[in-house]
Amino acid sequence: MADPTTSARPRVVVVGCGFGGLEAVKAMDGAAVDITLVDRTNHHLFQPLLYQVATAGLSAPAIAAPVRHLFRKQANVTTLLGEVTHVDAAARVVRLKDHGDLPYDHLIVAAGATHSYFGRDDWAPLAPGLKTLDDAFEIRRRILLAFETAEKEANPARREAWMTFVVIGGGPTGVEMAGTLAEIARQTLPGEFRRIDPASARVLLVEGSPHVLQSMPDDLSMNAREQLTRLGVDVRTDARVTTIDAHGLQVQPTEGEPYRIESRCIVWAAGVVASPLGKAVAQSTGAQLDRAGRVIVEPDLSLPAHPEISVVGDLAAAKSHVPGREPQPVPGVSPAAKQMGRTAAANLLARIAGRPTRAFRYRDYGNLATIGRNAAVVDLTTPLGHLKFSGYPAWLFWLFAHVYFLIGFRNRLVVLIDWASAYWSKQRYARVVSHIEPSRTRP
Amino acid sequence: MADPTTSARPRVVVVGCGFGGLEAVKAMDGAAVDITLVDRTNHHLFQPLLYQVATAGLSAPAIAAPVRHLFRKQANVTTLLGEVTHVDAAARVVRLKDHGDLPYDHLIVAAGATHSYFGRDDWAPLAPGLKTLDDAFEIRRRILLAFETAEKEANPARREAWMTFVVIGGGPTGVEMAGTLAEIARQTLPGEFRRIDPASARVLLVEGSPHVLQSMPDDLSMNAREQLTRLGVDVRTDARVTTIDAHGLQVQPTEGEPYRIESRCIVWAAGVVASPLGKAVAQSTGAQLDRAGRVIVEPDLSLPAHPEISVVGDLAAAKSHVPGREPQPVPGVSPAAKQMGRTAAANLLARIAGRPTRAFRYRDYGNLATIGRNAAVVDLTTPLGHLKFSGYPAWLFWLFAHVYFLIGFRNRLVVLIDWASAYWSKQRYARVVSHIEPSRTRP
Repeated sequence: MADPTTSARPRVVVVGCGFGGLEAVKAMDGAAVDITLVDRTNHHLFQPLLYQVATAGLSAPAIAAPVRHLFRKQANVTTLLGEVTHVDAAARVVRLKDHGDLPYDHLIVAAGATHSYFGRDDWAPLAPGLKTLDDAFEIRRRILLAFETAEKEANPARREAWMTFVVIGGGPTGVEMAGTLAEIARQTLPGEFRRIDPASARVLLVEGSPHVLQSMPDDLSMNAREQLTRLGVDVRTDARVTTIDAHGLQVQPTEGEPYRIESRCIVWAAGVVASPLGKAVAQSTGAQLDRAGRVIVEPDLSLPAHPEISVVGDLAAAKSHVPGREPQPVPGVSPAAKQMGRTAAANLLARIAGRPTRAFRYRDYGNLATIGRNAAVVDLTTPLGHLKFSGYPAWLFWLFAHVYFLIGFRNRLVVLIDWASAYWSKQRYARVVSHIEPSRTRP
Repeated sequence: MADPTTSARPRVVVVGCGFGGLEAVKAMDGAAVDITLVDRTNHHLFQPLLYQVATAGLSAPAIAAPVRHLFRKQANVTTLLGEVTHVDAAARVVRLKDHGDLPYDHLIVAAGATHSYFGRDDWAPLAPGLKTLDDAFEIRRRILLAFETAEKEANPARREAWMTFVVIGGGPTGVEMAGTLAEIARQTLPGEFRRIDPASARVLLVEGSPHVLQSMPDDLSMNAREQLTRLGVDVRTDARVTTIDAHGLQVQPTEGEPYRIESRCIVWAAGVVASPLGKAVAQSTGAQLDRAGRVIVEPDLSLPAHPEISVVGDLAAAKSHVPGREPQPVPGVSPAAKQMGRTAAANLLARIAGRPTRAFRYRDYGNLATIGRNAAVVDLTTPLGHLKFSGYPAWLFWLFAHVYFLIGFRNRLVVLIDWASAYWSKQRYARVVSHIEPSRTRP
């Protein structure tokens, strides 16, 4: 399939080094292909722990590993820092912002997702979401400065607004953020202020549907809600946000009168949408997008008229194929992205070798979510059925699972030390704000 | 001296939580005063290791400790995040940006220094200096992106410019930066790139005077130069920078023709100037400034007509008073700032108690500078005379001295682990760039 006039070996371009892209590249280790891995950042981000950076529990380097270092020993990989803006499927090139075209024989697009404000992009600066390190720094800055400003504020109403934290969205990120915010207020900061009592801070979790952690079984969802309440989070389900401004937000409950919450620190965890690159891929290839902007892929993760292009991870609307059963949609979680990356790479190599490709099958090992110190819920899928547990054992399980999957020995060790120390001291390691002024790097 | 109508105890305001301010506040632990510590950031920065953050060896939280956490158990301290813009010595208030006036009975100003471009402030965005965490992030970003861009650059001349690093100024910071840059190029990055050889990067250290590390004895200065050369740094002394632009700089040697260096990553380590708050203090109190903008203080560190105001640290033009000897100028180093902080606090308490104040005496324990892996110079002042050593033993001494003085047990442990790991693997932990675009937080 490679054009021998331009390259001795098939040229593979992988766009994105999240879980999907990373696994795809790893799975081609030793293969007779020339891989170019392109990403907008220089690091693979361990996104499940990003909320810890946002809540000052971990430093950024603890959860981010330089991509070219990860692949230094995989000789068939060239790492490029750059942003892919277009795909030209006819010419078989991807276009890099400021750096011309990159030709490919095979392409794997793993550009992931970003937050969605459901058409209200003007809310972005008022309620930042959590996808990148910059997002995490911005949220960390807002949380820490809210307490700092409250300490200086003489007006009681304004002081209370600075000490009211609202997390919008009751999915895993929203639950983690709300739980950890309550922990910071009740366990980390008390004793450090002279004019305010940080423990009196309010943390609200606002969710439009009736449940937090909707992807969990009902009993674990209820359990998570109880654990949140015990940590001091005011959980408001069946409550839709209708307006956000610089001083607070307006909430419309499913039943009852709308009301206002005065808050100076609002975090958005309510929705994700596929990377805009999905649209570029669809335009160039004729592939279809689903409502969330994800590219609808064939069973083997390639595109309908373009077997040389695969889409994996959060950017793909993929189905899991188990023989004899109806195909099931694949959830947007990191194990699914990793598995898709491996399948797409295997299929790519099969295609080069003239072998048939395999349909993607998602192996669901279960679901887990953390809530705060000693608080989590776990729902494991075992051959004997579901194994559910919560509270301290679930938190320990979550902790070790995450540290285990963190990339690189050093990170694991440092993260464990940071956590062990945070656990015993109830302190948070990374309470550093590099500048007081609002970040101008946000839109 | 306190006004009983407004406060039961004398109100002490300390501006700045660098080494001077921090030690002053610590020295008043348990005293019958109400201290307010004001700083523009929320952390005490261990500045001697800031170059490690800039060169991706340490994460920011490893060298920054939240101030209010440091003083959580010192009940007479209130910590405020804020920027002091003016001092009104007649009204005895300091003015906070956006937050009104803060009255004091006693004032210690420890606002430190910033980089000086000798009137060429237009050079600041072209050659960032290293004083704050934001500076360190910006320099880290430029160093890492220079190699990334070189890997993408097809034009050989432009590629070479991206792989040419120039450090301006041969003081301790310049020597550390140049040595560590050479280390990154020769030891950390090789093997990770496919199109460039990082080891072929050029690192130049440009210094206007005939020597690097001018404050060191001549033999150690020569030794440092040799160690730098061995690490692969091209040391150019007697060379003044006359122009800096986006593509390089113009150098005028003391003897010979001017020449140009094409470089896309230039670091400024050539000059410091006192904080602009020095001018505000001088205007309000009639105190004099020296050429570097530092406030000229009395022997006891207070101001001529205002015994209730002291200035310490890099903002003070102080002299060391040893009975029977001519007063000597105090160098702008952290041990001097700490000692001044303690003396100013003791004199403040003496004044409240009606006791006489003491003249400041600087105890010089010596001087040390690191150059890179296994490379440093040490000049210890002992009762028996100077003890000088260099190379590996000096580097070990430097390492343990710095880790010892880092604030807080956690930081020390994590820094030691980071370093031990970096030493054995030759890797650098914090190679993370959060955004590709140039930071918009710089002027």
